[in-house]
Amino acid sequence: MTIADRWLLPDGMDEVLPPQASRMEELRRALLDLYHRWGYDQVMPPPVEFLDSLLTGTGTDLDLQTFKLTDQLTGRMMGVSADVTPQVARMDAHSMQRQGPVRLCYCTNVLRAKADQHQGGRSPVQVGVELFGHAGLEADVEILHLALASLVAAGADEIHLALGHIGIYRSLVQAAELATEQERALFEALELKSPGELAARVAESVRDPALAGMFMALGRLHGGPEVLDEAREAFAEAPAAVGAALDQLRALHQGVQAQHPEVEPYFDLAELRGYQYHTGMMFAAYVPGYGQALAKGGRYDDTGRAFGRARPATGCSMDLKLLATLALGEPAHDGVWAPAEGEGLREAIAALRERGERVVQALPGQRTGPGEHRCNRRLERIDGRWEPRSL
Amino acid sequence: MTIADRWLLPDGMDEVLPPQASRMEELRRALLDLYHRWGYDQVMPPPVEFLDSLLTGTGTDLDLQTFKLTDQLTGRMMGVSADVTPQVARMDAHSMQRQGPVRLCYCTNVLRAKADQHQGGRSPVQVGVELFGHAGLEADVEILHLALASLVAAGADEIHLALGHIGIYRSLVQAAELATEQERALFEALELKSPGELAARVAESVRDPALAGMFMALGRLHGGPEVLDEAREAFAEAPAAVGAALDQLRALHQGVQAQHPEVEPYFDLAELRGYQYHTGMMFAAYVPGYGQALAKGGRYDDTGRAFGRARPATGCSMDLKLLATLALGEPAHDGVWAPAEGEGLREAIAALRERGERVVQALPGQRTGPGEHRCNRRLERIDGRWEPRSL
Repeated sequence: MTIADRWLLPDGMDEVLPPQASRMEELRRALLDLYHRWGYDQVMPPPVEFLDSLLTGTGTDLDLQTFKLTDQLTGRMMGVSADVTPQVARMDAHSMQRQGPVRLCYCTNVLRAKADQHQGGRSPVQVGVELFGHAGLEADVEILHLALASLVAAGADEIHLALGHIGIYRSLVQAAELATEQERALFEALELKSPGELAARVAESVRDPALAGMFMALGRLHGGPEVLDEAREAFAEAPAAVGAALDQLRALHQGVQAQHPEVEPYFDLAELRGYQYHTGMMFAAYVPGYGQALAKGGRYDDTGRAFGRARPATGCSMDLKLLATLALGEPAHDGVWAPAEGEGLREAIAALRERGERVVQALPGQRTGPGEHRCNRRLERIDGRWEPRSL
Repeated sequence: MTIADRWLLPDGMDEVLPPQASRMEELRRALLDLYHRWGYDQVMPPPVEFLDSLLTGTGTDLDLQTFKLTDQLTGRMMGVSADVTPQVARMDAHSMQRQGPVRLCYCTNVLRAKADQHQGGRSPVQVGVELFGHAGLEADVEILHLALASLVAAGADEIHLALGHIGIYRSLVQAAELATEQERALFEALELKSPGELAARVAESVRDPALAGMFMALGRLHGGPEVLDEAREAFAEAPAAVGAALDQLRALHQGVQAQHPEVEPYFDLAELRGYQYHTGMMFAAYVPGYGQALAKGGRYDDTGRAFGRARPATGCSMDLKLLATLALGEPAHDGVWAPAEGEGLREAIAALRERGERVVQALPGQRTGPGEHRCNRRLERIDGRWEPRSL
């Protein structure tokens, strides 16, 4: 085995070197501080759980993404966390059992068995916020604001927000009384965003002409806020839940506009991401130059039911690794270079560090200097006192 | 499956709830800031690597501690990082390839297949510092200081430091020309700290009476700094490397005393922890009430050799989860409770948050109040202005 082979890292399992790692640390702090100021309490979910717990109620997508391990202590199958959100929902439902609304945030490594085009690497650092116990839109608006504020904190200056609502598709499917297979075929046609495929599937399985028209409309209804007016017309005869979902999207639009007038949302009523999981509004925030969403979230009520407590829930998550690439560029040199030895030197260095200064002390015989160690000053002895001098 | 079963977590894979999670976050920041002020650059090693890379040159202990996974993309075996230190050594040797001394630090989750009595849980958050490229004791003294300073930052007020040096045992084994099996038996006798067992093994395998006496002395030589004087006498006829190791221990003692006069080191010349791994001085720092060391470290030169670059290396690591239990107790309530609605309320809340205040806003219909959400003030409208009032 050659040295190069030995160093090869698995695809999507990357290391982070300086200065990128400290940039990630800075952003981690900025985001957790932001969430703290909004009253979100930090939690740290277990990195590994028994598979039964980890995947209860989360659907097959997460199952396929989860690395499986055998527990040597019990022989039971365990899974490495691939998505923190359902874990946090269980912590709210079971471990914390607080009354009333609960706001939680986290920032932690997760692992994914497969990298797909939407998710980037296989070792993201998932950071996010979850709000449990409040079914009203105020919670969704707050989460949307925090998602956008997180991207701004990371350095995004142009954000595109896509908004959808799983309730529209779900209500139509229910009204059409589709068999599981028919529903699956329709779902795939909508995901493909192919009008021909959609028309074929609708003709095959939706008997009611009004409902058939609505499914076809679903494939067309994406664009600016005017989509909501068009939808109001197209779904005039739809079940009441569709109208309620449209009302929610309009209210969310107003909520976003009030706090982020620069962000013009894009509506996609056929967006079905996280179908097994979401129960209401869904969003994804994009930044030019990135092929994937930088923040994703939505409502996912009742995930905690299997753990004894069905609760309204809404939240959003991001990959800190990806976010930290928004503001690249070499950081400025900032530090004091100190010699290896000298009278009173230790005390002088300790005093500088006490004041928060970064002091890099040379080791005896060291050949590299302040430049290699990102220092912009040098500690020099002047009139018997050690003082930092600009380089 | 009952709800209780579903929630059971694997042994040693724990979740961290508020307020403990934010206490960990605070300590994480304090430690990384301390290392930053000393010129240590943060890195983030890959959480998963191919097994060949991960375990090269690290010995069987780490192998047994490492969770194994199959990479679905390549079919190759991967391992989840169980110890960050050899990974960081490889990053220094291969990815960074900087000239001269390199100081690196990290704080990251690791997973361990087995919990043993020395290591606590199976999902520690490993935090530590590594100094590469300097063989002199100045580097070891710096690392020792940072280990002690880390414990002080975590709230330890009484620290016991155990110091050893793997070079003493290693030199004696070499001089005695022991077969692998004989060496193994001696090693186990020393680890058992059983004088009878040690005498039997020494009688069996060490022919030279002078060397036999030295192995027996090894089993006795533990205690305060006077141990170094006794060792000087007991090892007067030993290979030169033993004397050099004793000199190093004495110099380390002086280095520690200069910066931490309150810490009286304990010497154990038969300490063999990390024998496959360490190459020089070794230390462990204990705090009363904890059965395990809270900081461990030592010199481990040349780990990077398999990756193309043998380098002097010394470092130390800790478990942030464990460290954060040093300063328990409920945190003080600090935050402003705001009502759900009110004229000019949004702007007032935004201004408070802008100043760094934690503001928890009630959601419409919420029944819990400021006490449940750790607030000590309430935002009230007084003469048309929103002002926080003490509760």
